[in-house]
Amino acid sequence: MTDIISREIQLVSRPNGMPTADNFTIAQTEIKPLQDGQILVRNLYLSVDPYMRGRMNEGKSYVPPFELGKALEGGAVGEVIESRAQEFKPGDVVTSNLGWREYFTASPKALHPVSSEIQPLSVYLGALGMTGMTAWVGLNLVEVKAGDVIFISGAAGAVGSVAGQLAKLRGCQVIGSAGSAEKVKFLLEECGFDRAFNYNSGPVLEQLNQAAPDGIDVYFDNVGGETLQAALSALRVHGRIIACGSISGYNQPQPGPNNLFNMIGKRLTMKGLIVGDSLDRQGEFEQEVGGYFQAGKLKNQETVVVGIDQAVGAFIGLFEGKNLGKMVVKLD
Amino acid sequence: MTDIISREIQLVSRPNGMPTADNFTIAQTEIKPLQDGQILVRNLYLSVDPYMRGRMNEGKSYVPPFELGKALEGGAVGEVIESRAQEFKPGDVVTSNLGWREYFTASPKALHPVSSEIQPLSVYLGALGMTGMTAWVGLNLVEVKAGDVIFISGAAGAVGSVAGQLAKLRGCQVIGSAGSAEKVKFLLEECGFDRAFNYNSGPVLEQLNQAAPDGIDVYFDNVGGETLQAALSALRVHGRIIACGSISGYNQPQPGPNNLFNMIGKRLTMKGLIVGDSLDRQGEFEQEVGGYFQAGKLKNQETVVVGIDQAVGAFIGLFEGKNLGKMVVKLD
Repeated sequence: MTDIISREIQLVSRPNGMPTADNFTIAQTEIKPLQDGQILVRNLYLSVDPYMRGRMNEGKSYVPPFELGKALEGGAVGEVIESRAQEFKPGDVVTSNLGWREYFTASPKALHPVSSEIQPLSVYLGALGMTGMTAWVGLNLVEVKAGDVIFISGAAGAVGSVAGQLAKLRGCQVIGSAGSAEKVKFLLEECGFDRAFNYNSGPVLEQLNQAAPDGIDVYFDNVGGETLQAALSALRVHGRIIACGSISGYNQPQPGPNNLFNMIGKRLTMKGLIVGDSLDRQGEFEQEVGGYFQAGKLKNQETVVVGIDQAVGAFIGLFEGKNLGKMVVKLD
Repeated sequence: MTDIISREIQLVSRPNGMPTADNFTIAQTEIKPLQDGQILVRNLYLSVDPYMRGRMNEGKSYVPPFELGKALEGGAVGEVIESRAQEFKPGDVVTSNLGWREYFTASPKALHPVSSEIQPLSVYLGALGMTGMTAWVGLNLVEVKAGDVIFISGAAGAVGSVAGQLAKLRGCQVIGSAGSAEKVKFLLEECGFDRAFNYNSGPVLEQLNQAAPDGIDVYFDNVGGETLQAALSALRVHGRIIACGSISGYNQPQPGPNNLFNMIGKRLTMKGLIVGDSLDRQGEFEQEVGGYFQAGKLKNQETVVVGIDQAVGAFIGLFEGKNLGKMVVKLD
């Protein structure tokens, strides 16, 4: 093995509100020679995800905070370059949580093998990766079934666009909200949503009531804020809320909905979702959703930027709604 | 039957914020002679309950609004005076939802027979009535079990004081909050709570963290507002919230908790509770909780005011925390 210099993105300061480029730096590290039991991986695609914003703060969250001066961690698809472990051989494709760098060495248990027959491989960060699995786990969490009217916010994003398509496959009526006319068009024309609206075009509650005049059974929440408040109002008795994300509030604290009393009056159930709790079901997920994907029943929309030096901009872009589907960084 | 004049409390205007005496009036109505299949009941005790505040507003809630110029409805215990239906005979004790009046006629299906052996009969509005059943249904709703650390707000009220005692009987560690030193003493000395604090003595979160330094598994919410926000912070991963009441916000709208993100981060479950959904389990409830009461394992604390003309003041008093345990009106 020749000496390898790997570029990586490090956090140099904790963002206050919206992250800026100044919070990050690109550093170079030398990859040390492999030891027995280790594998050298070259990353092909990196995932940038809204939940990472929480890890940039100090203090306890559901995952430990990122450390200053170290490479950020995140989902990635990579190719095995060299292996001193029997579980993997050069050319194998693997996913890991060791993204935001070009190369890394790891033990086999940090790697998850995937088939290279499914292309593009970035699908393992989207529909067949953690974001797709988040959508799938969410629908199962509150037993979404045929006939349910489901409203999905952040619907043109990585989780929302898969959740909506899976709900359609289950026989639901699917309504989505997103932040631009282009995204609304995508939901209706590409993802098969029954109705969709642009939350920038008018009050969310008004638009939701228009899209679902008889109310909704399920709300898949990716954004929180005004949209959660509208959904609480639109939910029917015994409705369910999948609390999956709250991107409208990640960069600034905000008051909660002022109509939480609907939880009682309508006997709602709200369940918080972290996909990491369900990793034991990854095989089942990959079989079911991989089958839909290969059969052409599920679209994996993605927004691809190229080059590790673009990762920070791609991450910040998530909060500006710059992604249609999954935002991924392709390493050149 | 001689002519009976019954006094009743009517709603004459809808409260704006905190209800005042001016929103109500006492009217006299003449009870018409019984027809076949009807029963004449004299009320002995009336129930005043916070949820009635919602019914005083116009517009849709989970129960229809009270009508102006008509007697208010509410839980009551009464005695059958005369019967032209085979299901009941004079002297029988019944509960109904036809309180806030001295006498009424009804068909058998509006009446629920109870044993007169359990005394005082007002217990059927408290521990063995809808408020006790609310506590029991709430604990079942999120499967509260031995070893759980449960925090109950409004703990010295009708629902909270029973919920805490039932949780103790299940082997939980029980923490309560209430609004006075006298109530805290009652929780610790009469209800067997492990720890209790006065929410007026300092920030709720600080006091809760002191009472439950390792966090809580379950929050039984009767008050909403600042206390819900503190509980969201104190809940452990996979914690559960019973959304039962929100008395801090019934008279004025308020923003929700600003830390609802904990629902996601800690994968919490929140379930709204209306006891009316579970009336098919009333027999099971009466058997279990009636057994505890008769065995002296469960205290039914009540605050009794006398006279139908005191009902409005008793109702308003609920929002001022004037009740220890169940607030009931004894008719003279």
